[in-house]
Amino acid sequence: MKTIMEQQETTKTGVASGERDKVHVFAPATVANMVCGFDVLGFALHEPGDEVVIRRAGEPGVRLVNITGDEGRLPREVSRNTVSASVISFLQYIGRCDIGIEIELHKHMPIGSGLGSSAASTVAGLYAVNKLLGSPLSRRELLPFAMEGEELACGHGHADNVAPALLGGITLIRGYNPLDVVALPAPPALHASVVFPHVDVPTRDARQMIRTKVALQDAVTQWGNVAGLVAGLFRNDYELIGRSMQDVLIEPTRAILIPEFYEMRRLAIDAGALSFGISGSGPSVFAFAQNAEQANGITSVIQAHLTAQGIGSHGYMSKINMEGPKEITNKHAVI
Amino acid sequence: MKTIMEQQETTKTGVASGERDKVHVFAPATVANMVCGFDVLGFALHEPGDEVVIRRAGEPGVRLVNITGDEGRLPREVSRNTVSASVISFLQYIGRCDIGIEIELHKHMPIGSGLGSSAASTVAGLYAVNKLLGSPLSRRELLPFAMEGEELACGHGHADNVAPALLGGITLIRGYNPLDVVALPAPPALHASVVFPHVDVPTRDARQMIRTKVALQDAVTQWGNVAGLVAGLFRNDYELIGRSMQDVLIEPTRAILIPEFYEMRRLAIDAGALSFGISGSGPSVFAFAQNAEQANGITSVIQAHLTAQGIGSHGYMSKINMEGPKEITNKHAVI
Repeated sequence: MKTIMEQQETTKTGVASGERDKVHVFAPATVANMVCGFDVLGFALHEPGDEVVIRRAGEPGVRLVNITGDEGRLPREVSRNTVSASVISFLQYIGRCDIGIEIELHKHMPIGSGLGSSAASTVAGLYAVNKLLGSPLSRRELLPFAMEGEELACGHGHADNVAPALLGGITLIRGYNPLDVVALPAPPALHASVVFPHVDVPTRDARQMIRTKVALQDAVTQWGNVAGLVAGLFRNDYELIGRSMQDVLIEPTRAILIPEFYEMRRLAIDAGALSFGISGSGPSVFAFAQNAEQANGITSVIQAHLTAQGIGSHGYMSKINMEGPKEITNKHAVI
Repeated sequence: MKTIMEQQETTKTGVASGERDKVHVFAPATVANMVCGFDVLGFALHEPGDEVVIRRAGEPGVRLVNITGDEGRLPREVSRNTVSASVISFLQYIGRCDIGIEIELHKHMPIGSGLGSSAASTVAGLYAVNKLLGSPLSRRELLPFAMEGEELACGHGHADNVAPALLGGITLIRGYNPLDVVALPAPPALHASVVFPHVDVPTRDARQMIRTKVALQDAVTQWGNVAGLVAGLFRNDYELIGRSMQDVLIEPTRAILIPEFYEMRRLAIDAGALSFGISGSGPSVFAFAQNAEQANGITSVIQAHLTAQGIGSHGYMSKINMEGPKEITNKHAVI
C-alpha cells in the first residue's frame, strides 16, 4: 500500500499537496418534511442516490462532460445545471477559479420524484470538489452552496433536502437567519419504505397549491406533533414517533395530486407502518416501520396496488443513512 | 411511629381502608407556552403555588369552608369555584358523591398573573381529594378533571398549565384527540427567573387579541423553534434552548398589553438570560438562566426597573419543579 507521500508524488503536475486529481462520490436521496415538519425536517436514505465524478483538467474552467440517467431532462449549461453552478460558487468562494474541473453526473434516481433528486446531485458534486481540493471547507460549510443549487433547481433555497443529503441522518432546520441545522438522533430500528409512483407533480406547482395563511389552531396541532416527533426520536419511542407524524396543514392539499394516496396509506398502516405520508412535495410516499421485513412488506403491497391501478412505480427500503455522501473507491467511473 | 394499620384504626368511623380524613397539598405555579410552544409546552416552578386542605365531613356533599389570599375575587359557590367544581366531577366519576368533603383553599400566588393560578388551585384540590380516598386514580387520570377546572376558570379547557402543575417538570401536550401528554427532560442547570408586574391582563382578553389566521411562513418558523427547543432539552444544549425560544406569532400581539416588555427583555438578556418571554398570556414574564445567581440577578434587575417606572411586582426564582404537587405534612393547616 502506498503512503500518503507516495500518493501525492504520483499526482500530475499542478496539483497542490493534499489535492487529488479525481474524486467519485455518491450522495443519497432524502425525505423532506417527515409529515409534520414541513420545511424543517428531513432524513437521508441509503438508496437511491446520485453519483458525481470530479476530475482535474489542464484548461481552467468548469465543464459538464457527461450526464447519464436523466433522459436528457437536466440543463447542460454549466450556469444552469445545479451541480456545475454550485461547484462554480464554491470555487469562487475559496478563490480557485483558476483551476480546471470536469464533472460527470450519473443520476441513479428519478427526477421530480420528491426524493431530493437535485439535492443528491448538488451535494455529491460539492462533496467531491471539496475532497478534490484537500477539503478546504467542512461539510457544514458546504451547505450554503448546496442551498444555492436548490434555489436554481426548485426556485427556493430551502435546506430540508440538502441538509440531510450532506450531513446524513435526520436533520432539523431550526431557522434560516442565521442558518441553524440541528442533527437529530435516529432510533436504530427505524426503517423507511419509499415508493415513487410514476406520476408527475412538479415541485413548483405543489408549493403553489399550499395556502399562505393557515388557521392558528391547525398550526398549534402541527407544532405539537413536531415536538412529539423530536421527543420520540430522542426516546426511541416508536409509538410516539408514529402518532406524531400527522399533517393537518399541507397533506390535505398535496394528497390531491397523488393518485391512490389514501388507499396507499391504508395499505401501509394495515401492513404495520408506524406512519405514512408524502416525501417532500411528492409524488413519492414513505412509511416508517420498525424492521426491514415490515418495511419491505409495505413497499411491496403499495407497489402491487399501484400496478393493479396501471401506475408504474419505483420502490425502496432503507434504514436512516447516518453517513450522507460517501466516496466511491471500489468501483470504476463510467468514463 | 405508628404503622399504617394503626393510622387506619385512628381515623374516624366511615373512612374505608386506605382512606384518610385530612390531606394538605401544595401545587405549583406553571409557565405555559415557553415562548415558542403556544398551547403545547409548559413547566412547573417551585414557587409560588397554592395550598388546599381537604377534610372528610359527616354530612354528605362538597363545601368550600375557607378561601384565603384571593382578596375575595374567587367564586364561593361550589359549582363555580374551580377547586370544588373539579372535586365534584372527580367524586361523580369514581362514584363517591355520598361522602362529605370540606375544602380550604389558601392562595399564595397572584390571580390573573399568567402563572397558572387556577391550575395550581385545581391541581392541589384534585391531588388532595384523590389521596384522601386512597388514590383511586393515577396522576395522569386526574388530568381531565383539572382541564374541566380550566374550562370553568378561563373559558378554554387547555392543559398547558394543569399538565405541568399535576405531573411536574416540562410537559408537552402533543394533542388533544386523544389527550397525549409527553414528559420532556429538564436540563439540570436550568433556572427560571419570573416577574409578575402588577398590571391587569385578563386571560380571555389576551386570547381574543390573537389572530385566528397566521402566515404559513411564520408557523414554519415557530415549529422549527419548537423542534429546536425540544432537542435542546434532551441534549442539555443551553445555547440551542436559548436561540429556539423565540415567538414570531403570539408575542408581538401580547407584548402590547405588558408595559416595559421590550425593556425587560433587554435587561434580562444583558444580565445573561438564555431566553425571555411571556408566561402564559401574561402579564408575568420569565427568563431562563444557567444558574441560581444569574436567575436571581435577572429577577432583581427587572423588578428594580419596574419599581423605577412606578410599577409594583412580585419576583421569583426557581429551578424546574420535577415533583409537581406535594403533600404538606410538617405544617399546621390554617383551620
